[in-house]
Amino acid sequence: MSAISFSSTHLHSWKNPKGFGKVRKQRDGKLLVKCSSKSGNPTSLQNGVRVGVLGASGYTGSEVMRLLANHPQFGIALMTADRKAGQPISSVFPHLSTRDLPDLIAIKDANFSDVDAVFCCLPHGTTQEIIKGLPKHLKIVDLSADFRLKDLSEYEEWYGQPHRAPDLQKEAIYGLTEVLREEIKNARLVANPGCYPTSVQLPLVPLIKASLIELKNIIIDAKSGVSGAGRSAKENLLFTEVTEGLNSYGVTLHRHVPEIEQGLADASGSKVTVSFTPHLIPMSRGMQSTIYVEMAPGVRIEDLYQQLKLSYENEEFVFVLENGVIPRTHSVKGTNYCLINVFPDRIPGRAIIISVIDNLVKGASGQALQNLNLLMGFPENLGLHYLPLFP
Amino acid sequence: MSAISFSSTHLHSWKNPKGFGKVRKQRDGKLLVKCSSKSGNPTSLQNGVRVGVLGASGYTGSEVMRLLANHPQFGIALMTADRKAGQPISSVFPHLSTRDLPDLIAIKDANFSDVDAVFCCLPHGTTQEIIKGLPKHLKIVDLSADFRLKDLSEYEEWYGQPHRAPDLQKEAIYGLTEVLREEIKNARLVANPGCYPTSVQLPLVPLIKASLIELKNIIIDAKSGVSGAGRSAKENLLFTEVTEGLNSYGVTLHRHVPEIEQGLADASGSKVTVSFTPHLIPMSRGMQSTIYVEMAPGVRIEDLYQQLKLSYENEEFVFVLENGVIPRTHSVKGTNYCLINVFPDRIPGRAIIISVIDNLVKGASGQALQNLNLLMGFPENLGLHYLPLFP
Amino acid sequence: MSAISFSSTHLHSWKNPKGFGKVRKQRDGKLLVKCSSKSGNPTSLQNGVRVGVLGASGYTGSEVMRLLANHPQFGIALMTADRKAGQPISSVFPHLSTRDLPDLIAIKDANFSDVDAVFCCLPHGTTQEIIKGLPKHLKIVDLSADFRLKDLSEYEEWYGQPHRAPDLQKEAIYGLTEVLREEIKNARLVANPGCYPTSVQLPLVPLIKASLIELKNIIIDAKSGVSGAGRSAKENLLFTEVTEGLNSYGVTLHRHVPEIEQGLADASGSKVTVSFTPHLIPMSRGMQSTIYVEMAPGVRIEDLYQQLKLSYENEEFVFVLENGVIPRTHSVKGTNYCLINVFPDRIPGRAIIISVIDNLVKGASGQALQNLNLLMGFPENLGLHYLPLFP
Amino acid sequence: MSAISFSSTHLHSWKNPKGFGKVRKQRDGKLLVKCSSKSGNPTSLQNGVRVGVLGASGYTGSEVMRLLANHPQFGIALMTADRKAGQPISSVFPHLSTRDLPDLIAIKDANFSDVDAVFCCLPHGTTQEIIKGLPKHLKIVDLSADFRLKDLSEYEEWYGQPHRAPDLQKEAIYGLTEVLREEIKNARLVANPGCYPTSVQLPLVPLIKASLIELKNIIIDAKSGVSGAGRSAKENLLFTEVTEGLNSYGVTLHRHVPEIEQGLADASGSKVTVSFTPHLIPMSRGMQSTIYVEMAPGVRIEDLYQQLKLSYENEEFVFVLENGVIPRTHSVKGTNYCLINVFPDRIPGRAIIISVIDNLVKGASGQALQNLNLLMGFPENLGLHYLPLFP
Repeated sequence: MSAISFSSTHLHSWKNPKGFGKVRKQRDGKLLVKCSSKSGNPTSLQNGVRVGVLGASGYTGSEVMRLLANHPQFGIALMTADRKAGQPISSVFPHLSTRDLPDLIAIKDANFSDVDAVFCCLPHGTTQEIIKGLPKHLKIVDLSADFRLKDLSEYEEWYGQPHRAPDLQKEAIYGLTEVLREEIKNARLVANPGCYPTSVQLPLVPLIKASLIELKNIIIDAKSGVSGAGRSAKENLLFTEVTEGLNSYGVTLHRHVPEIEQGLADASGSKVTVSFTPHLIPMSRGMQSTIYVEMAPGVRIEDLYQQLKLSYENEEFVFVLENGVIPRTHSVKGTNYCLINVFPDRIPGRAIIISVIDNLVKGASGQALQNLNLLMGFPENLGLHYLPLFP
Repeated sequence: MSAISFSSTHLHSWKNPKGFGKVRKQRDGKLLVKCSSKSGNPTSLQNGVRVGVLGASGYTGSEVMRLLANHPQFGIALMTADRKAGQPISSVFPHLSTRDLPDLIAIKDANFSDVDAVFCCLPHGTTQEIIKGLPKHLKIVDLSADFRLKDLSEYEEWYGQPHRAPDLQKEAIYGLTEVLREEIKNARLVANPGCYPTSVQLPLVPLIKASLIELKNIIIDAKSGVSGAGRSAKENLLFTEVTEGLNSYGVTLHRHVPEIEQGLADASGSKVTVSFTPHLIPMSRGMQSTIYVEMAPGVRIEDLYQQLKLSYENEEFVFVLENGVIPRTHSVKGTNYCLINVFPDRIPGRAIIISVIDNLVKGASGQALQNLNLLMGFPENLGLHYLPLFP
Repeated sequence: MSAISFSSTHLHSWKNPKGFGKVRKQRDGKLLVKCSSKSGNPTSLQNGVRVGVLGASGYTGSEVMRLLANHPQFGIALMTADRKAGQPISSVFPHLSTRDLPDLIAIKDANFSDVDAVFCCLPHGTTQEIIKGLPKHLKIVDLSADFRLKDLSEYEEWYGQPHRAPDLQKEAIYGLTEVLREEIKNARLVANPGCYPTSVQLPLVPLIKASLIELKNIIIDAKSGVSGAGRSAKENLLFTEVTEGLNSYGVTLHRHVPEIEQGLADASGSKVTVSFTPHLIPMSRGMQSTIYVEMAPGVRIEDLYQQLKLSYENEEFVFVLENGVIPRTHSVKGTNYCLINVFPDRIPGRAIIISVIDNLVKGASGQALQNLNLLMGFPENLGLHYLPLFP
Repeated sequence: MSAISFSSTHLHSWKNPKGFGKVRKQRDGKLLVKCSSKSGNPTSLQNGVRVGVLGASGYTGSEVMRLLANHPQFGIALMTADRKAGQPISSVFPHLSTRDLPDLIAIKDANFSDVDAVFCCLPHGTTQEIIKGLPKHLKIVDLSADFRLKDLSEYEEWYGQPHRAPDLQKEAIYGLTEVLREEIKNARLVANPGCYPTSVQLPLVPLIKASLIELKNIIIDAKSGVSGAGRSAKENLLFTEVTEGLNSYGVTLHRHVPEIEQGLADASGSKVTVSFTPHLIPMSRGMQSTIYVEMAPGVRIEDLYQQLKLSYENEEFVFVLENGVIPRTHSVKGTNYCLINVFPDRIPGRAIIISVIDNLVKGASGQALQNLNLLMGFPENLGLHYLPLFP
């Protein structure tokens, strides 16, 4: 491919940099507003995918918008936020001020007839009812926990209420892309995985499938940046309460436990009970799971390493580092990567696995976009070509 | 433009996702390695611009590489770092491990015959000699301070040594893009502005040109993230010495002073002396200049606002916020934007101007790329379509 | 004094380390519970000062408790927090768990007959009514803004409501200790200064009194740690919203402006209007005011320095650094110090003054304790002998 | 005891606040300079303990000085720092500027004849030779690793050189105060424990002694603030490299491993091999060990809790929190406390133990002072009555 033929939008903008004027809020048919710069070069997509963002005032919502801004095929058709309805996005997220985006609306006022797909970034519990009410032509990636647990009694146990959309639950496909890619391609509703479960399952599922580690005594010491707790104003999330300190929380009781155990049980064919202790780290983004496992009899650390290498050799977003290199959250900040490595433990027969992701990207909005790419028939890496922001 | 015709590289990758194999280190003619994902979809550019990064082991160097990773026309041809020569970039910057990039080489071993342009990210002082020795076919954007000051005696005064490339100094164009765009387009060597001078000149130059503010008693209280100090291991830049504290430094003696005064003098036609006090803030990126000025007789705050609006209405990267909205460094993190606003002071006749940039992007590598785009005849925003990483 | 005779409490504890048992909640007459370690050596004070803390669930309240823990003459008699009444302090401030302190009560349930003095750490507005209702035998240091402004119309203008205790306002003494020490000694009610006004007045008052600086064009660029905003759960104070960014706020409209101008007017004998712009810095504690002033005709920078040295040579808590040394917030963290220095500006005839304090100590609870020491006839430094916590 | 008789130094200072003048550097016999405020009230101690600080330019050295500043019986006689010899402490630690302390000297120039005890804050390796050369009348608390390992072959294995003071090694007492208090009282040389080993042994030793947990598969996931890495200027400790990220390091290879295993072996009477993975957290101070253990057959979580409660019920500095309360590093910042709790794991038969300390206090200088108090015959809590600095 020659440089000249590359990237026709850019060349187009170049030749006619101001030609479009402000197309904001004026659109018809399949003409879609790209999330373009206000003063720059607005472009439009014919035949592009028209995406709605439900729950656009939280961090996963704003992260979806960041990623869509450079997506070549997706445009933002509507954004909802019930408590902020009528406001411009700039009043909720000043960092989006430079873009020409639609104002926030209430979900009840959304017209989905010109929308092809939605990201659902709403709280668990209410999500199931809202998705039940959406038109059936929509492709949906749900970032809440509402459709992740196949066993409805487990949902009720961990979330304290019966599930109100059991049929949808049956339809939903669990969106751990690298593990369930083919199923996701044909899905209508994807239950996007939680951040902790993503960081844990990506390294463990291949090792369990290959019977290289024991199912008992899997100990997961997980560390997360604060953005994982969302944007609601709580005393324990204030800067002054978080900075320069470390906090374990939900010891053994975190709601991501059943999701992790479900994924490992699926991989192994038998019930798995894990030890899982999350820690809040004084940083905005980033997640590390340090996982302590027992190797199966006769298995050596090299076997684990080679299995992970093999499992992910063709994957763009899961990357097994070179021997001995320790994964760092800095290396995935703002990106959709999961970096993994495995280390011999000092205790014979044991191994230490470290995996890192950005909790808002591969742990939420990035994987959601990866899944929507698949749902819509595009390459899964579209719009996800970011390098980490470091330092 | 239809979605189908868009972005042929991506479609190409999609159809033949693994077809290229590893092209790393094998290139000839005009075939160039894109900064592509190792396990993903390497692509090559024919007729693309072959870029060298001199001094690739510092923060401005790594930021250049982050930005080039998604540039549709530029590929990385070589990277130098004398003290790290022979090492892979992943050993210097683990966050670049996922990319297939050339190993670091010593500058003396660089073959520039297959290179079209270089970013020079070297320390001041040595830069002038190195650039003097580069082949004349190269387009150069120099991020050091070596060619910014037109008055060689000022250079000697502030940098403590005579300038060793006075002819090149005469040739160099000062790269404040929005102010000197036409000159930059025809330049061979661009002296990329310092971070503080960028944040100060962008708001002040139009106001001074329009004679709206007094030249006397311009007081600049500037705040910078720590990455502005570079990556050298110094005690005063340790995490423990910086976190949870604030540090003024170089009170009235910072080397960016003559650069600021030069820019303001050019705008006004007369000598300007400013008060400039920088402060180190416990954050990695971001820069704010809070500027206290006296308005010219009869001028009102609205006049300043309207002038700034007018001056930048067609600019993509300089953005005057809505009336009353305070610019925040969070809103530019990782982007090439400069956000500006102006506020009435409590003291009658005075105004407060606030401008924010990301010191590593608009304050360094982003503006450098904006300039190289111009030098090579491309739209200046190519490869700079990022939204801020927030939170 | 010999080591043997020193510090009889400690020796007492030593000889009889567990003798007291838990005296918590059992007290009569003048026997007072010290804020002692639960498992350690509880001690009691006969004839000690019995102190109440009103509004003990905020940061200034908890800082009062930290300082009282090692005060040789003051014991905590009661602590109120209306919304947390009935709770142990450990549920509100886990970091106080190791101490044997009374449970929180509602202010209406407080029995002040066994209390000698109170720190009032309540929000402005409600404070005036509460203090009006307190018994007259109490000595009061009020940390709110309610009694700081002598001009009641200014109070109404800046706080949006008429003052409801004008007689008390007349009685109140402004508690800038080093400036009004003698008045404070004889006061019953002290209006403890705000943090910004403390950091500004300490350097400026002596210079203004000595007519060394002009009253016009005093420009104050102030920077504060986040604890100054208190402990209420607000979105803009979340860790994710604050870390790695800088925020100007209340540009020219901050409520500390009239307090600053009142102090400077008192020093000069004429009205003063200042420019004041506060910035929120991503750190918990610490405050710096960078102050830009014009020197009076013929005055040199050395004159300012010598005046400050002279004014504070006998003060323990205000410290003028050696020539050229820049004050750092790190150097006052957790202490009652104000560090000051003065620098020549690049613009002839101007000077730059930098002062730093810990906003929660000299800017709030520390100065409050310094004042209560004076009110009760003790040396003002009692209980304030801390060195900064660094790093 | 009455308030009037309390704290005679303070009353003394009060009556004669400036009487002493500057006694700095003028002392004879047993008259000692207290670490007093320069402008405040210098005091002297007759018969006080004259303490030397060897290696005063690092963080453990400066922390010793912070704690001694309020110690009623100890005064600072000399401070050494070979590379900073001749400098005032304020040039090395500006936060100590307000105190009247002796200048730094080279260790070879130190006159120990007027010194009673030293804190040795030097790097491992060189420490053993220096202590070998010290006069025998000195009581010594060594904060390095040089005398912690009883087995000299282990020292050689982990530190890469043979031990050069094996006789001193035999004499040294390991300074884990709560475990070896009686031995420490009679020691001359105390090997102060490492920070990680302190945080691990305090919870585990009583449980192992009581045979409540299995010795196999003890998994320690430890998290530390950055000050634990010391003050040397290394690239990986720069603010920009640490903030907003998490770093595992020395996976299974950290030098604190043999010290931990030695302590657990002493408690159990048999060899113990642990899994130990430290993580660097973006905060200055604080350390948490999250420890995953198997309970002995028939043992319940309540048994562990009760044992810990019982073991530490009379200890001031080790504090078992109430049932269910999670220890937080914030709650020990700047203090000598170790907070502990124990939680049931989701995997039956397992328990999770969390302990937190301030790595520079109970993990270094605080425990060192606690030990020197014992060596000199004082109550071990003298000078350690601090509450945490929060927020």
